[in-house]
Amino acid sequence: MITEIAQIEIHPGQEKEFEAAVAKALPFFLAADGCDGVDLLRSVEHPSRYRLTVRWETVEHHTVTFRASEGFAHWRALAGPHFATAPQVEHVHSVLAP
Amino acid sequence: MITEIAQIEIHPGQEKEFEAAVAKALPFFLAADGCDGVDLLRSVEHPSRYRLTVRWETVEHHTVTFRASEGFAHWRALAGPHFATAPQVEHVHSVLAP
Repeated sequence: MITEIAQIEIHPGQEKEFEAAVAKALPFFLAADGCDGVDLLRSVEHPSRYRLTVRWETVEHHTVTFRASEGFAHWRALAGPHFATAPQVEHVHSVLAP
Repeated sequence: MITEIAQIEIHPGQEKEFEAAVAKALPFFLAADGCDGVDLLRSVEHPSRYRLTVRWETVEHHTVTFRASEGFAHWRALAGPHFATAPQVEHVHSVLAP
């Protein structure tokens, strides 16, 4: 299990609309092959900065399968207009014993 | 409840020692006032980049209480020698309904 962290800077003032767009897009993630959950984190220090975190079975479930899916197109159509810059995407895995 | 994300770049080659140091420092976090859990995430794309995530009741439990504590001094003594640069610290909170 890995976690995608997409750091997203949005246009200041569009926080409410962006959060509503993400909520609307959640089903596309949750229905995706290999997706185990999603969260949206907002920065305290930089309120227009968010991190979308998505748990995937493998990196490829995100970078290959999901990115080629209609769900991804729907997600970007909903949330993309609020992006101030291209999201910075990275994958991480926990190294602590559960 | 908020989450501290400390992004930590370590000296390449010291991954094993750094992870052991964090494991050794875990009790200092878990014993801290207002701490609700810790994880250590390693980047897939940048293997010398980690994110220490700590759940706190409030930002101040981290920035005021913990940073003034002996536990913080112990943590930095254990992990600090492996840091390649100063950690980048930010606090986030989930905006999705549970």
